[in-house]
This record gives sequence, C-alpha cells and structure tokens, in this order.
Amino acid sequence: MTRTEIASLGEFGLIDRLSQSFTPALPDTIKGIGDDAAVIDLGEEYGLLSSDLLLEGVHFDLSFFPLKHLGYKAIAVNVSDIAAMNGQPGQVTVSLAVSNRFSVEALEELYDGMRAACTDFRVDLVGGDLSSARSGLLISVSVFGKVAKDKIVYRNTAQPNDLLCVTGDLGAAYLGLQILEREKQVFLANPDMQPQLEGHDYVVQRQLKPEARMDVIYELAEAGVVPSAMIDLSDGLASDLLHLCKASGMGAMVFEENLPIDEQTYLAATELNLSPVTAALNGGEDYELLFTVRQADYDKIKNNPKVSVVGFVTDQSADVTLSMKSGSKVPITAQGWS
Amino acid sequence: MTRTEIASLGEFGLIDRLSQSFTPALPDTIKGIGDDAAVIDLGEEYGLLSSDLLLEGVHFDLSFFPLKHLGYKAIAVNVSDIAAMNGQPGQVTVSLAVSNRFSVEALEELYDGMRAACTDFRVDLVGGDLSSARSGLLISVSVFGKVAKDKIVYRNTAQPNDLLCVTGDLGAAYLGLQILEREKQVFLANPDMQPQLEGHDYVVQRQLKPEARMDVIYELAEAGVVPSAMIDLSDGLASDLLHLCKASGMGAMVFEENLPIDEQTYLAATELNLSPVTAALNGGEDYELLFTVRQADYDKIKNNPKVSVVGFVTDQSADVTLSMKSGSKVPITAQGWS
Repeated sequence: MTRTEIASLGEFGLIDRLSQSFTPALPDTIKGIGDDAAVIDLGEEYGLLSSDLLLEGVHFDLSFFPLKHLGYKAIAVNVSDIAAMNGQPGQVTVSLAVSNRFSVEALEELYDGMRAACTDFRVDLVGGDLSSARSGLLISVSVFGKVAKDKIVYRNTAQPNDLLCVTGDLGAAYLGLQILEREKQVFLANPDMQPQLEGHDYVVQRQLKPEARMDVIYELAEAGVVPSAMIDLSDGLASDLLHLCKASGMGAMVFEENLPIDEQTYLAATELNLSPVTAALNGGEDYELLFTVRQADYDKIKNNPKVSVVGFVTDQSADVTLSMKSGSKVPITAQGWS
Repeated sequence: MTRTEIASLGEFGLIDRLSQSFTPALPDTIKGIGDDAAVIDLGEEYGLLSSDLLLEGVHFDLSFFPLKHLGYKAIAVNVSDIAAMNGQPGQVTVSLAVSNRFSVEALEELYDGMRAACTDFRVDLVGGDLSSARSGLLISVSVFGKVAKDKIVYRNTAQPNDLLCVTGDLGAAYLGLQILEREKQVFLANPDMQPQLEGHDYVVQRQLKPEARMDVIYELAEAGVVPSAMIDLSDGLASDLLHLCKASGMGAMVFEENLPIDEQTYLAATELNLSPVTAALNGGEDYELLFTVRQADYDKIKNNPKVSVVGFVTDQSADVTLSMKSGSKVPITAQGWS
C-alpha cells in the first residue's frame, strides 16, 4: 500500500486533497470549504460558521504566553474569520483537551481571557466540550455569525484594478514572537536574567493579544463601503494575498513603500537582524484584514488612518508581484507549514 | 497560590465551574451552555450549535478502531446532539490535529468515513482547520442545525408523570468495547491469535459505528409527537437521566425489566462476567435518545418498535430510582471521568 507523507503535500496541499470530494449537497449551504467561513442560508440573512485550532507546542509556547492572553487570542482569531466575511460574530463554542499538568486555577485564567474577548467582541460563549488529554493543551473554537445577504464579502470576487487595502500594520506579531523567543533562550541559559522587553511592548502585545478588526468592519459599513473581496491575515500578507488572488483568478501588484510597518517593528527587526519587509510579507498572525475595493470607493477610505492602500489587483492570473523601493520587481511566494 | 487538581472536581464539576460566569448577553442567544446544543434565534426558526472532541488514547484506540469508522463516529455523535434538540442537522466543520505518524492515505480513510456519515445524515462538511500535532490524533467537530421554534425540545422541561422513553437498546456499545479490548489483549499476548468476534458482531458494530437517531426524530414528527424533554445518551442512561432530571428539577422511576437490552449484549456480558443492567445504565456511547412524552402521547409511540417506555418522571427532585425485577429499589448514580 502506498504511503504518502503529510509533509510531501504541505498544509494547503493536504487540505485541498482531503476536502476535494466534499461538495455541498444541501440547498441552504451557500458556501462550503474555501473561504474564511462557511455560508449558510438562514432565510432573511446568511449565517457564517468557522473553526480554528490552537495547539500547545505548535501554535503557542506557554513558557512565555500567559494563559489569559491565550484565551483572548483563541476567541479573537475566530472572530477575525467572521470579520473577513464582513459579518457580525455572535456565538462561540470552545472545546478543550487538557492534561492534568494544568490546575483548575490555570484553566480559570484561560477562561478569564476568553471572557474578556467575548466582552470586547460582543460574542457569547455558548458551549463546547472538555476532555482530558495525555499531554499538553489544545483549544478548538468554533464561531457562528450573521451577515446581511447583500453585504457578504468573499475572497474570490476581486476584480482587475480594485485597490488592495490592509488594516493596521504588518509584521509586528511575528517580530513580537521572535523577541519573546530570544528572551526565552536568555532565560533558559541564565534563569536570573530578567527579560529585556523594553521598547518592544507593541510588537510583543501584537503577538500576545491579537485583535479581530471588527472596528474596521463597522467603520467601512458606516462609510458605505462593501469591499469587493476580503480575507484575514493569519498566515501573512504573501500567503493570504495569494489565496485571494488564486480564488479570484486575478493577480496583484504590491508596493513595498506602501506596506504599513510600525516603528517598533523596524526596531525589533534591526535588533534581530531580520528584514522588516519579509516580516510584513511572511510573518503571519497579524489578524489584520486584507481587502479590495473598487476605485470609486477610494474617497470613502482614504482618510481612514486604519486603512492602507498597498497596491492593486491585476488581470494577470496568479501573477503576484512586489514592486520594491529600488524599482525592481519580485514575485511574491508563500509558505505554509510542511 | 492555590492549586486545585482537575481530578478533584471531575468532568462535570469542572465544566460547571468554568462555565458559570458565561451568561449570554446577545438577544439572539436563546440558550447558552447547558443543553445538547446552543440555541440561536434566526428569525423564522432556531439555529442549533454544538461541538465535540475525540482524542486518541482517550476516546478511541486505533489498534482496533478503523479510521473509517472513526470518521463516521465523529460526525454521528455531533448529529446526535442536534437530534436531541429535535432539530435537523445541516453543516459540520471538522478540525484535525495530526502527527506525522499518519499518512495521507490514513487521513483519507478517516475522511471517507466522514463522507459516508455526511451522506447518511444529510449534512455538508463545510470547513474546519488542520494542524500538525506532536503526537496522536485529535478530531474536533462542530455542527450547525435548525429547528422550528415550536418544535424545539430542551432537557429541562420534563414534567411529573411524563413517560420516560429510550430509543433502540442500551449497553451494547460498552460491551462491544470490552470485547474489542479483550481481543486486543489476546493479540498482544500472542500476535498469531485471530480475534474471536463471532457472535459479537452487533455489540462490536454498536461501538465502532454508532448512529445518530435521526430516524426516530423523523418518525416522532410524523406521528405528531413533540417530546416534553430530550437528551442523547452519550455518557450512559444513568448519567444522562440524572442530567435531564436535574435540569428539569424532577426525579424519575426506571423499571429494570423495561430496559431494552439486546440478546448479544446479554451474551457478551455473560462471557465477560459483567452485569448487562450495569452496562445499560452506565455503559455510555450508545448515542440513543432519552426523551419524555406526555401520557396523552402514549398511543402515538406505543407501536414504534424503536421506542421503549422505561419509566416515568416524578416530582421528587433529584430522586432517580431503579425499580429492580426483584422488587427492591436502588438509587441511580452517575459517573463522569475524573
């Protein structure tokens, strides 16, 4: 019998292979696998359903990730999937697998963080499951949301010449993680050393307490803008832009000089001898939104300080290019886990 | 700082403690934590949302549990939660955490089973997440369903003198597991031995391929019966009946002689020197439905061969009693994991 290693396909290849035969059959399944959330017809409006996993040792390291922040993050990253459909999150379920290494008080810390996120994003925790695990901690969150039928935004509907926009700034969460990893190594080498996080509070916070950009969703609605396509930035601008372009059958041109990068991100990158542009492109975990708007909507977004226009959509399918400050152009490629 | 061990609270105590402060705040959250599924107002009807975890080494042993069956079970047990609300399942998300011990072909087996269950229960797999894990396999499934507002059934609405009904038969899944465990030990002692499963095909199948009783849900609807309360039998009749009674503020009387127990369950119990009645009460994983009906509905269910009336509801809060064939009466108690 053939044995194909998971690593040989990579994350996205494996997802493609496993999900290819799951074609929705029900009349109320509007969109199945392939966007930030599934879309379900509720009659008057659409329902949105999405799920995310967080595993200890894969997605987080409890030696520097406080449980309260982890709880907050688990909710925020799911809410971000609903935001990416231009929807309103409503209810979440949280399933935990937990080893007896954790005390009840530790789990209460985790739930404190989830409660804070539920309050911030106005969602209700309505259920889930709880199981013992042989080792470690795993958090599985599902979120249900709603969106008006004429306001839903998919990732596969970008059009040529649409403006490419991102919220907030990029690369900070990745550099926050690098700073935390560095301090962990210092601590492991000498437990008397105090972590040196001064000057890095912003990037560290971006790693430890990501926010779903529901604020921007509300502001776009207020400004009368419905994006032509949208995706959330969980894997990094490069990877997620490629998803959006591939789904839309489009290409894109991104301008390096337009990438929103915070001052602290530059500082941390310099300290760590990393490229801030690479962090912005491939860092991931920013949970900002990447969306496209018609050029006619430019006036409605140009004064929003939370939104940067970083490029435009082209009709050159699968051709996603970075235009450097130097004038040279390089293809943008992506990385999933393998 | 205090350290309370998870084991000191037990599964249900821990769930109570962690979930106590999550009071729903949104107007469309009709029911949060505390039933088989959360209930969300969709306007014309109610939405139902539920999640379940399955962990290798805790919920299943791959040395005798085929991956295809496991995939089927993962979907079926979630559909069962929707059935228990008298609802119609629609969409599921499946999140997997998987180590590189598994090949792509092995995961395809798992998904083949999920696909079969999706076809049988008429649900669409619409999304999820996929992550590498350091070891083992974890499956997290969430299900979304719908139910007419006047047909929803909760677990906390049983009334005195309602008839206590169960579908199918009880204890078989537990004894199937005991048979499989026995054959595993035989195999480990001598790998040349063939498993002795003859005469045990039914109980083994009940363990490996549980079914959600959507068939009974459709039949009750056809007969014009809306149960007065309902819960699915995942933890065992004793535990789940106690949940239903506690939630309803009621008690119950169960008659041993009315417990539906298959001939093969008796056989396996005898062979293993176990009590078939204990298996029926505490076995778990039958995924049958426990429901109550008004006495006036008795004529509508009495000829359904899939339904057994096993007792009745009393107004003696928390007093759940088994009336033995011998005439003696014993309190029914429950067991969760600790």
